Amino acid sequence: VLDPSPQAPAAPVADVHIRASFDSADGLAELARTSDVVTFEVEHTAPDGARQVELRRPVRPSSATLAACQHRLREKRFLRDHGFPVAPWHEADSAAALDAAARSVGWPCVVKIPFAGYDGRGQVRCATPGDLAAAAAALGFDRGPLVIERHIPFVAELAVIVARGLDGERRTYSVVKTVHDDGILVEVAAPAAVPQAIAERARVLAESIAGALDLVGVLAVEMFLLERGEVLVNELAPRPHNSGHYTINACSTSQFEQHVRAICGLPLGETTLLRPAAMVNLLGDRRGPARLTGVEQALSDPQVSLHLYGKAEVWPRRKLGHVTALGDGPDDALARARRAAAALRWEPLAASARP
Amino acid sequence: VLDPSPQAPAAPVADVHIRASFDSADGLAELARTSDVVTFEVEHTAPDGARQVELRRPVRPSSATLAACQHRLREKRFLRDHGFPVAPWHEADSAAALDAAARSVGWPCVVKIPFAGYDGRGQVRCATPGDLAAAAAALGFDRGPLVIERHIPFVAELAVIVARGLDGERRTYSVVKTVHDDGILVEVAAPAAVPQAIAERARVLAESIAGALDLVGVLAVEMFLLERGEVLVNELAPRPHNSGHYTINACSTSQFEQHVRAICGLPLGETTLLRPAAMVNLLGDRRGPARLTGVEQALSDPQVSLHLYGKAEVWPRRKLGHVTALGDGPDDALARARRAAAALRWEPLAASARP
Repeated sequence: VLDPSPQAPAAPVADVHIRASFDSADGLAELARTSDVVTFEVEHTAPDGARQVELRRPVRPSSATLAACQHRLREKRFLRDHGFPVAPWHEADSAAALDAAARSVGWPCVVKIPFAGYDGRGQVRCATPGDLAAAAAALGFDRGPLVIERHIPFVAELAVIVARGLDGERRTYSVVKTVHDDGILVEVAAPAAVPQAIAERARVLAESIAGALDLVGVLAVEMFLLERGEVLVNELAPRPHNSGHYTINACSTSQFEQHVRAICGLPLGETTLLRPAAMVNLLGDRRGPARLTGVEQALSDPQVSLHLYGKAEVWPRRKLGHVTALGDGPDDALARARRAAAALRWEPLAASARP
Repeated sequence: VLDPSPQAPAAPVADVHIRASFDSADGLAELARTSDVVTFEVEHTAPDGARQVELRRPVRPSSATLAACQHRLREKRFLRDHGFPVAPWHEADSAAALDAAARSVGWPCVVKIPFAGYDGRGQVRCATPGDLAAAAAALGFDRGPLVIERHIPFVAELAVIVARGLDGERRTYSVVKTVHDDGILVEVAAPAAVPQAIAERARVLAESIAGALDLVGVLAVEMFLLERGEVLVNELAPRPHNSGHYTINACSTSQFEQHVRAICGLPLGETTLLRPAAMVNLLGDRRGPARLTGVEQALSDPQVSLHLYGKAEVWPRRKLGHVTALGDGPDDALARARRAAAALRWEPLAASARP
């Protein structure tokens, strides 16, 4: 594993921990030398680094897949060029172009930086033409053209995790319903309570995108469901994704094992949802040393399981863990997961009590 | 974690790896000092060590539970004293006593050393009185009285994993059918295809034993099912057990998470079997460096998952991993697991190819 942090979460289970930055030439060369196949965990990893490793070892998903998904503008272009349904959007490399683009996509709209930014960062919502100047000033054009996108009044957000093997074999997990709060995924319910035809549409869309990307690994496809049953693609993430964490508890093959199978050229595992499930994220609500309380109460429902990421630092809205609950249906599971998450609190840790 | 081996499997995920023998006073003191609660993975751990740690920290299961289960003769006495049904047995501290004991328990019988020995080691089967002298000579009386036990013509072997919390809460996994080959567990099918009344008898037995042991943690109870529906207790193991490995894939709370919940004083998780499942052990078939082949074929059934223990050395009949399969029923799952296991082979590794 290549990770500059001494507390790299993957380090304890890795054979070798290369402590270097994600774009260090020496670090990447060492990673290639010690590995049979290389994958990445965050798509912000520089595609240049992936390309460098690819000269010596297979990188899966490939640097080309990474480049298409890691960069918002390229992702939009990829989806458009392949005819996948998306909300109206334009790119704009100046304030004047932004005004014109906004008129074309319609109101309200969201202006986003062309790459980087996640969990709601790097974007500004605009309700009227008067909001555009502030958005342009806040985001700037120095990273390249801004992306301006119609804010679609969706009835639900959906997500699908699709896995694709080295030989093109595809396996797709249940279509799930997701809920975001100010850009951050907060809840997932599986399966999504939508008509079969819509679930099927979402599944086909995800599998088609995986094929068009020539994906090897797992891919999360986030979508909007519109009032008339239309499904639009919102975002892609070519890696195990927060919307698939429930698979650890509710499927025999988790999205993590599936990703490893795919990149190692092994056959894919079963993706059947064994029981309805829901996930609620645990977000930081303060800055500074803190410890989790309420675990006993959260786990008093036997259908609940708790997953903590062991992150060294807490800050507001940082994803620190999640709870998964199984249930008789997605609503029952979600109610259980919400109750458990509500019992959990980050309690300030006195400096003297720090480990 | 306290483990003398530099390759201790638990070391990578432990905060501290204390490299000392399991009975090292310094090692045990350090373990107590650095831990909030202590548990053990193999019941061969010396109860003296557990008692030493117990002076400073909670040991769960307790040293008393460990002492009762870790020593075959004490386990037999415990089961007898609490009135749990077992096959006829006697203890014998001399060749003459062995002859008398054999007459009392009946033929065929099995003579076993009073403690240690597992996977079929440390025991001799006797079909006639003429076999007893050789058994006594092979096993000896220097470790204490031998245990002589009637070999019961069972129709099936069953096992139950029961978990018991700090507050006495009990949760029991499905009753499973197990198959041993020459003393080594080779196959598990869940649920056991037995009448509901028998499964219920096995469950109640396991829970009663957990209560009588004042268990905190998980306990495997291995049993014999006799032709007329009688259930006899064979062996106890106060820890996650090979017969419960299928819970990783087929239940939302694995036996390992359950053990951690119990010893940490947390509420127990759901034990429902989400899908019928089966497990087949992967045993070494040679001595010396070897690598596993046939993984691709084994995983070509998507319902199969592979678990390897990363043991550094292979030897004949050593447990090196297992496959789990889910299926439409326990027979279907078992057929899938057997097919997958049959595809896997330990291939000799040329010295030059060693990692």
